[in-house]
Parts: sequence; C-alpha cells; structure tokens
Amino acid sequence: MKLYDRPGFPNPARIRVVIAAKRLESAIEFISVDLIGAEHKQAEFLKKNPLGVLPVLELDDGTLISECTAITEYLDNIDQRPLLTGKTAKEKAVIHMMQKRAEAGVMDPIGLFFHYATPGLGEALQVFKEPDWEARKALGLRAGEQIKAGLKYFDQLLSNQPFLASNAFSMADITLYCGLTFADVLGFVSEEFSTLKTWMNNIAEIPCVRQRSGQQFVYDDLIRMGLV
Amino acid sequence: MKLYDRPGFPNPARIRVVIAAKRLESAIEFISVDLIGAEHKQAEFLKKNPLGVLPVLELDDGTLISECTAITEYLDNIDQRPLLTGKTAKEKAVIHMMQKRAEAGVMDPIGLFFHYATPGLGEALQVFKEPDWEARKALGLRAGEQIKAGLKYFDQLLSNQPFLASNAFSMADITLYCGLTFADVLGFVSEEFSTLKTWMNNIAEIPCVRQRSGQQFVYDDLIRMGLV
Repeated sequence: MKLYDRPGFPNPARIRVVIAAKRLESAIEFISVDLIGAEHKQAEFLKKNPLGVLPVLELDDGTLISECTAITEYLDNIDQRPLLTGKTAKEKAVIHMMQKRAEAGVMDPIGLFFHYATPGLGEALQVFKEPDWEARKALGLRAGEQIKAGLKYFDQLLSNQPFLASNAFSMADITLYCGLTFADVLGFVSEEFSTLKTWMNNIAEIPCVRQRSGQQFVYDDLIRMGLV
Repeated sequence: MKLYDRPGFPNPARIRVVIAAKRLESAIEFISVDLIGAEHKQAEFLKKNPLGVLPVLELDDGTLISECTAITEYLDNIDQRPLLTGKTAKEKAVIHMMQKRAEAGVMDPIGLFFHYATPGLGEALQVFKEPDWEARKALGLRAGEQIKAGLKYFDQLLSNQPFLASNAFSMADITLYCGLTFADVLGFVSEEFSTLKTWMNNIAEIPCVRQRSGQQFVYDDLIRMGLV
C-alpha cells in the first residue's frame, strides 16, 4: 500500500496513529505531498483525490481511498480484528457518531479557521481559497465560533468518561486528539478547558499516539512560516 | 427502538430508506419532531442530540445515536448481515469514502443553501441561524457553488458505473439520492446533468427507496410555505 500524506498535519496525523495502532508501518510506503507548494491541488494529485485533500491510501490493486474515516475503516478491518472502529452494531454506531462530532466540532472548523482566518500555509495555496474576502472572513470567524462551542461540548463530555465512545479508545479519540493538538497550537485550548488539557495529556501517552511516525513536521513548517 | 425524525426531509429520508432496506419498520416507533416550529433546537430535544439535528435513534437501553452514518451502521449491522455498509475492509472503505463525498458535495451544502440562501423553514428557526447577515449570505452562496461542483463530479462518475461504490447499492447512494431529490426541488439538477437525472429515476425504482414510509411530507410543507 502507498499513503500519500504530509506527516504532522492534522488529518495525516490521524492516519499515522491508526497505522501505529495496527502495527502496519512496514506494510506501507509513505509518499510525502508538498502541501505548502499546493501539490495536492494540481491535476496529477486530483486524479488520486478529486477533492484535493490529504491523506490518500492507494491499495496494491490501484484502488484509491480518501477521507480519514474510510482509510481508518480499511486499515482497521484488513485483519478482521477491528480495534478502532467497533465490533458490535452499537459500538460501530457510537464510534461513528463521535467521529462525526469530533470532525464537525473541532477537526473541520480548525482547518477552515487556519486557512481562512490566518495566513494559512501561505501564497501558493491562496489561489485555491474562497475568492471573496468578505466570505472568507465570515467563514473563518464562524469556524472559530464552532471550535469554541466544540471545545466546550467535549470538555464537559470528557469530565464524565475517559474516551468519546465511553470506555474504549477509538478512531473518534484520534480525530479529537489531532484536532485539539492543532487547535492548541492556534491558541484555542485555553485554561478554561482544563478537562480537555488533562485528556490530551492522557491520550498523548497511549502507545500508538506516542509512537506514531512523523509527528513534528507541522510545527517545523509553521514555525518557519512565522505562524506559531 | 424509537426514531425521532420528520418524514420527508432529506436526512430523515436517508434513514427511512435504510429502515425499508432492512425491513425494520415494525421494530421502530416513529416520533415526529416539529422542525418548522424549531422543536429540535429546544432544551428537551438537545438532551437527545446536543447538535440539534434530526434524525436521532434511541435504543431500548436508552443509548442515543445521531448522525445518519452512525444510525445506518447500527441498523445495518444489528442482524450481522450488512447490506448497505460493506462486508470486506475494502467495501467498507469505498462506501465510507463515497458517503463522505455525497455528504460534502450535495447533502450538507444543500442544507446550508436552503437555510441560508432561501427563507428556509421560516421564522421560528431564524433565531438559530448565523446572526451576521454577510456571513449568512456568504455561506449560502458558497454552498450553492459547492453543490454545482458536486453535481458535476457525480454526473461524470455515474456515467461510468451504476452506484457510487461501483457495483452494489449502498448507504452512499441513499445519501446522494436524498440530497439530489432536495437539490432538484430547489432547482439545481438542470438538464445539463442528464446522467444524474437518469440515475435518480433508476434509484427511485429500487424497492427500499420506492417503498420507504413518509416520503411526501416535505413537499407538502414547502408548498404550504410557498417555497416550491
């Protein structure tokens, strides 16, 4: 299998954790895509994912899988021993519900906020953004409000349970953790969210999270660009 | 089980098709929620789904499942014979990828367009919308552009294959079909998208789609409100 990604960015990081959890590092060839140079918006990459986003998994038969939930379902089920996506109907349902909430409440808006309310990844990507400046500002600000609401929801939820789908670590926790890590870099995870801060520290110690490959790159990029 | 929904609306319609496909009508008590009166935004309903959207499935043990993908995973897997969500890792992955594309390309933006670029469901819901008028307009217009791009993508894709996940009808087709039906009411599915029109007619003839309960209500509501 080949994974087209950029280590350290929030969505690629989700799949790096999944790969570590399933001990699949040696089964995958990692191909780095130049996000900052907008390689993922060029014709060659759009053949792999018409939506122009990372990561993309290419199977040995040529099948292309994009979207983190879909890639996680694949990697978690190839050995027919799912660890992260649930075994029973109820487990699957609760995990998918929480996956969607973690995306809608933190992961998706933090991406929108970064690209629309900050200089984002710089000039090469600007031309692929919403061209209307008023719309761009509105989208960025709305995303910021969504993140604040999302953080409040998860802070309260996790004061009563260790993981999003109650007692077992799942793909939903990976999504929330990767989203929160990025939201924290951008200043959203303030002292007010003390439960979330403790939760992030606990999740960071889970072996597959701690041992995932390529986790520092995004900070190097952002520091180089003067964003953090 | 109880299903809180409003028959005929696009997301509730997805689950009505799933229920028909799995022949689960008699196992479910349907509870109609007054969307037009904003019942789903009131405290009582927010206890069931803090995101304030329909549908919500309540299991006999009190577990609350929201988000259509999650509800579909539950209903499709309770008999351990999945029809709509895939059996193998690869089937699951392709179906989840296409489910996300159908949501991001049609279902989610048609909802945003309806609520932000038209009078939507009227006065009771207005107070729960984005308060900034410029932002509201920007969101509505952007959603309209996303739908047009989505329709173009699916029109081309379905000129080469009968279903989104290649050869088998799945939850992704249900999502696209319900999204397209609503997009068509709002005038988006023009003659230019002839493949989509044919595809919609074909999907409409699949027994679970044709036989689903409660499919006409949304039109009655919209006609009464002078929207179509």
